[in-house]
Amino acid sequence: MKDEIRIGIVGYGRLGRGVELSVAQQPDMTLAGIYSRRSPGKLTALSAETPVESVAALEKGDAPVDVLILCGGSRDDLPHQSPRYARQYNIVDSYDHHARIPEHLAAVDEAAQVAQRSAIISSGWDPGLFSLQRLIGEAFLPEGKTYTFWGEGVSQGHSDVIRRLPGVAGAVQYTIPLESAIEAVEGGEQPELTAGESHRRECYVVLAPGADAEAVREAIVSMPDYFEPYQTQVHFITQAQLEAEHAEIPHGGYVIRSAETGGGASQLIQTRLALGSNPEFTASVLVAYARAAYRLCERGDFGAKTVFDIAPVLLSAKDPAELYRELL
Amino acid sequence: MKDEIRIGIVGYGRLGRGVELSVAQQPDMTLAGIYSRRSPGKLTALSAETPVESVAALEKGDAPVDVLILCGGSRDDLPHQSPRYARQYNIVDSYDHHARIPEHLAAVDEAAQVAQRSAIISSGWDPGLFSLQRLIGEAFLPEGKTYTFWGEGVSQGHSDVIRRLPGVAGAVQYTIPLESAIEAVEGGEQPELTAGESHRRECYVVLAPGADAEAVREAIVSMPDYFEPYQTQVHFITQAQLEAEHAEIPHGGYVIRSAETGGGASQLIQTRLALGSNPEFTASVLVAYARAAYRLCERGDFGAKTVFDIAPVLLSAKDPAELYRELL
Ligand SMILES: NC(=O)c1ccc[n+]([C@@H]2O[C@H](COP(=O)([O-])OP(=O)(O)OC[C@H]3O[C@@H](n4cnc5c(N)ncnc54)[C@H](OP(=O)(O)O)[C@@H]3O)[C@@H](O)[C@H]2O)c1
Ligand SMILES: NC(=O)c1ccc[n+]([C@@H]2O[C@H](COP(=O)([O-])OP(=O)(O)OC[C@H]3O[C@@H](n4cnc5c(N)ncnc54)[C@H](OP(=O)(O)O)[C@@H]3O)[C@@H](O)[C@H]2O)c1
Repeated sequence: MKDEIRIGIVGYGRLGRGVELSVAQQPDMTLAGIYSRRSPGKLTALSAETPVESVAALEKGDAPVDVLILCGGSRDDLPHQSPRYARQYNIVDSYDHHARIPEHLAAVDEAAQVAQRSAIISSGWDPGLFSLQRLIGEAFLPEGKTYTFWGEGVSQGHSDVIRRLPGVAGAVQYTIPLESAIEAVEGGEQPELTAGESHRRECYVVLAPGADAEAVREAIVSMPDYFEPYQTQVHFITQAQLEAEHAEIPHGGYVIRSAETGGGASQLIQTRLALGSNPEFTASVLVAYARAAYRLCERGDFGAKTVFDIAPVLLSAKDPAELYRELL
Repeated sequence: MKDEIRIGIVGYGRLGRGVELSVAQQPDMTLAGIYSRRSPGKLTALSAETPVESVAALEKGDAPVDVLILCGGSRDDLPHQSPRYARQYNIVDSYDHHARIPEHLAAVDEAAQVAQRSAIISSGWDPGLFSLQRLIGEAFLPEGKTYTFWGEGVSQGHSDVIRRLPGVAGAVQYTIPLESAIEAVEGGEQPELTAGESHRRECYVVLAPGADAEAVREAIVSMPDYFEPYQTQVHFITQAQLEAEHAEIPHGGYVIRSAETGGGASQLIQTRLALGSNPEFTASVLVAYARAAYRLCERGDFGAKTVFDIAPVLLSAKDPAELYRELL
């Protein structure tokens, strides 16, 4: 029997818990430990058997893990955590600040090259699976347009922005693609769509005691970039409703390539995700890329890579021969 | 400016013409020639500039091409053409006899290894893009079921089988996925579906003079494996209608992964293709893999591979840095 791949989780938030759940579904992996900046005594892993430790245990580079899956936040944690841990371990992250990916890639690559470790950055679904579909669509069908629609699902960033407004005690924001837009794209029309023509936004808000509902509503719908360009609905609910009806973190969306081949035929490639849990799905993708990072290191292919650089065969627990037989 | 990749087409049927059209859409490729077993004088390329030659011109291994795209039939041509040409050239094929892919891969690999050439077999959409989606779905979501639905579109094999029946002068068969099945799968039910619960079949048939319509209908719907397990409709039409209304070769379908992650959330990844022209789309995929085969050979990565082994970055005409910036 082959040795199992030992996974370490760095950062135990929503994504970290998703990785814990995902590793338990894998035939070839074991969870070596959860590493947090918080005091381990204050954290409870889903399984009592999982060691929970301080990130200090990673410092010497000798923790018993093959790949660290970094589950920190993209804004404040990963820009320093990813290069730092790539200096000692194979890593995978889900860095999602699209505009800064090249910079992040360069920083992680430098660390991983020196350390002779393998890193895969910006995995997950967007960036991640959706990025792959965008690349494939464009490579197979060079004359066309690619559309990405997000939702229906909870946008963490937009929810946070509402929560920070005066008079707001709690909030969840759903991003919803406009059916009219998807239908136009599916129909092969290749429309030019503005932000507001692609998505609408629904906000569920718990008011702070004494807050003025109309003022909160106005502060939301008039917020530039975040809500102003969109058809935005604001619903006021109670804290109990927020907890009972909006605790799940669903998400999803569409990548659609609409194109013409040389003889004038319309061609459409559409990928749709309907995710009951965004963090559990994202975590599952990270875990598959952790397998790839492990294999890259085994064969001496060091440095930082992205999902674009990974041969699909590296993602599967199955042998290539089995994949050719069963899935090709 | 980089040199353009010189493509040769071997076999000038529907797929071969599709490749001719696709190469014209690529910024980094040029069509070096079309090679046919038929007399070149009898063939007319879509563009007058394209050299049309006999396959004999390939014999010495010195034809001015970087990659040959083999467009012969899977049943009778590719089993010998692919290993043969891999002995002298980089090749790509669309071999679609799923059960025999391992055998085909081994034969092509042996030839390509000796010749230090790179080959990618069984590319296209199924096998091809659909295979990739099956692998990704299973790797990301190990606990679930994968469904493939084909259509609505023309099945070449089923059309051929009808054409060979006594009393039939012409025929086209459409495979149509059952909406009830797709809805059940999309709803996360993970049903067990028999062949007949997944697809139905519509046949448009031109009778030979004096043929008995009822006998032909009966011969079709009772045919084991091909039609008997399915709800099959037979429509009798004239030769003029066949030519006017059934000349296009649309196809498409769905790959759906329905699964649960460890916390119990339902997760769905769905890929849908709606192809105005099956051969033009298949050809476009082959052309992108020809680019990958060229690059593999450039870096000394010889032998036969499948779509599972190819990093997505190799498919695009763009630089990796450009892809990271624009599509990740
Ligand atoms: N690529 C994609 O498709 C995709 C999709 C979804 C998310 N993401 C990325 O994933 C990142 C992480 O998402 P997330 O939902 O897991 O964020 P999160 O729950 O806020 O967790 C982020 C970090 O905050 C710390 N933390 C968590 N709960 C805490 C608490 N109660 N008190 C103090 N600190 C706490 C944890 O680090 P410590 O344990 O060290 O304290 C954790 O690693 C996001 O920033 C996003 O960039 C990417
Ligand atoms: N992987 C996928 O998704 C996918 C999808 C579609 C098709 N395919 C594969 O592609 C293969 C080729 O499909 P196709 O539609 O191009 O088949 P096709 O039109 O029947 O052509 C097959 C070969 O027959 C010869 N030929 C064509 N027209 C002829 C004619 N009028 N008279 C005599 N010979 C003729 C050509 O070779 P010469 O020029 O040398 O005579 C040609 O290469 C299929 O067998 C299938 O396996 C794969």
